[in-house]
Amino acid sequence: METLKVDVGHARYPITIGPALLARRDLLDAQIAGEAVLIVSNSVVAPLYAARLRSGLAGRRVADCILEDGEQYKTLQAAGRVFDALVAHRLNRDATVLALGGGVVGDIAGFAAACYQRGVAYAQFPTTLLAQVDSSVGGKTGVNHPGGKNLIGAFYQPVAVIADTDTLATLPDRELRAGLAEVIKYGLVCDPPLFAWLESNASQLLARDAAALTHAIARSCAIKASIVGRDEREHGVRAILNFGHTFGHAIEAATDYREYLHGEAVALGMLMATDFSNRIGLIERSVVERVRALLTLAGLPTVPPRIGRTRALELMQMDKKVLAGAVRLILLERLGSAIVTSDYAAGALEATLTEYLE
Amino acid sequence: METLKVDVGHARYPITIGPALLARRDLLDAQIAGEAVLIVSNSVVAPLYAARLRSGLAGRRVADCILEDGEQYKTLQAAGRVFDALVAHRLNRDATVLALGGGVVGDIAGFAAACYQRGVAYAQFPTTLLAQVDSSVGGKTGVNHPGGKNLIGAFYQPVAVIADTDTLATLPDRELRAGLAEVIKYGLVCDPPLFAWLESNASQLLARDAAALTHAIARSCAIKASIVGRDEREHGVRAILNFGHTFGHAIEAATDYREYLHGEAVALGMLMATDFSNRIGLIERSVVERVRALLTLAGLPTVPPRIGRTRALELMQMDKKVLAGAVRLILLERLGSAIVTSDYAAGALEATLTEYLE
Repeated sequence: METLKVDVGHARYPITIGPALLARRDLLDAQIAGEAVLIVSNSVVAPLYAARLRSGLAGRRVADCILEDGEQYKTLQAAGRVFDALVAHRLNRDATVLALGGGVVGDIAGFAAACYQRGVAYAQFPTTLLAQVDSSVGGKTGVNHPGGKNLIGAFYQPVAVIADTDTLATLPDRELRAGLAEVIKYGLVCDPPLFAWLESNASQLLARDAAALTHAIARSCAIKASIVGRDEREHGVRAILNFGHTFGHAIEAATDYREYLHGEAVALGMLMATDFSNRIGLIERSVVERVRALLTLAGLPTVPPRIGRTRALELMQMDKKVLAGAVRLILLERLGSAIVTSDYAAGALEATLTEYLE
Repeated sequence: METLKVDVGHARYPITIGPALLARRDLLDAQIAGEAVLIVSNSVVAPLYAARLRSGLAGRRVADCILEDGEQYKTLQAAGRVFDALVAHRLNRDATVLALGGGVVGDIAGFAAACYQRGVAYAQFPTTLLAQVDSSVGGKTGVNHPGGKNLIGAFYQPVAVIADTDTLATLPDRELRAGLAEVIKYGLVCDPPLFAWLESNASQLLARDAAALTHAIARSCAIKASIVGRDEREHGVRAILNFGHTFGHAIEAATDYREYLHGEAVALGMLMATDFSNRIGLIERSVVERVRALLTLAGLPTVPPRIGRTRALELMQMDKKVLAGAVRLILLERLGSAIVTSDYAAGALEATLTEYLE
């Protein structure tokens, strides 16, 4: 078991990573105050793990709210269902919302907790690798709008993140690999030793070796906690965690969010962002080849769909991270160090888009 | 024109009070950044004042979202309509939401601004006396749930409050009087000179004398700004602003929110809270009579409906300000000084409820 701390100034909370944590009543008693809780989960995860979590909550008043599974249900209406459950069970300001599931469940439940009675406590129990290394940490909560992803939300920190690695046992291989994309990202933007460790240990991770998974998750959370502690609201350094996401977002949007898991699109986006960083002279060609090789080793895609450079550029400009028309990109200045810039030759961007997307 | 400042530490903003402010382009340019704005208003206020505000916004990109008028429309769905408008007009993080209307419009628009892209700027243009002296200041935003008022919301401060007293010209008399109830409240809980001034100037206020209204609004806002500056999230002193509200809430709820305006119910509640403060020996009987006399002078009700003490107590206990069964009440320890307590003889509370409600 590994324990880390997040400290954003106005809020501090522990992240605990390891096996058999869901039913650990001592841990839950120490980290979750309040006698009444609402478990928010979905129809796939709840049958697998809700009973385990309930056993860790013995002695408390426990209600639940089971949402439908899938990104298409990450809506304001789903948040409304959580409000309905909180009201129906007469939960008050002392209640704690427990998000048991992947990123979708965590985002909805966190947003509902942020708004219910202008803010009640919530804790994250992430059950996917992606949620354990990324979305459960840092307090970005929210739901999608038909006009765009995560357009409605709040910055709202949990009181605890408890990542039980046993829950990864039932995670489909494809989702495990997609989660690895974000781990690779942390190595690329700020941790060369992690990148090198991944080059040596990708196969152990894919084989779900417990020690390897715990190390990868703990290292990822430590990096995210440190960055979020310095820049909760993404006014500065937190933006580097979007490495690969602007290209990836264009690929996801152009394929209607149906063909690629988020992590797969990010993998493709990271490769393109690395290629572009090389093209404008920031890094050596060898870095691009190491990225491609590691993505391949991790079973992630390296050949993007032919969505066309014009459509891609349009989608990148629509992305909400774009200010006043200039596409701000996260680029590598070396392996392990990222910069945010909109100062580059437009021709170079076109060249990368042409090579990968035409 | 009077200008005040609110300072809650992480946010500071001006409150400007006076005639002919809506069309004051210099003022708006100074206080509202961003080229693109969304005016959120309702079907009663927009035809009266939206054009005036638009003239003050000349040169900007202005869109609007006109909601239905009435507390029954203060719903998550209404906030959803504001999100739809923000997305439809492709407004981004630099946009500012402008709430033009009473408390309902301000609460919905403020909540939508708090959530859109995890927070965009908003400014309050309150057009009712109640909103000008109370709800537009202090950052409580939110919507109702069928299970209770303001159950969904956020603490989120505006970038400016601009109270154009000219908009009170079209306010129905009954709503003007209801707004005065909150002004009287400020006198009672922390400003004896204001209370005495109201005793001498109630008729000027009811006659809509511009100087008298500006004074009453400015003094109310100064008090609220000072209290909110010390306790934004109502962990302590801010609770005294709920004076009369626990009794008033029971009256509103027992009459299905149909018979009394909020300020009218608060007037009745303040009288009962004052009576109760006297009954347990905190204040002289003469204070109760001064309160009754001032409410009468202001044209506010002083005889509550016969809702019964049992039902009232039940509703007071359901109120979300009640912790673990004990009804916390805001009481007067003298005119101009309030305390929060749940330490009193239950019999005394029953006596007040019996005298006023049976």
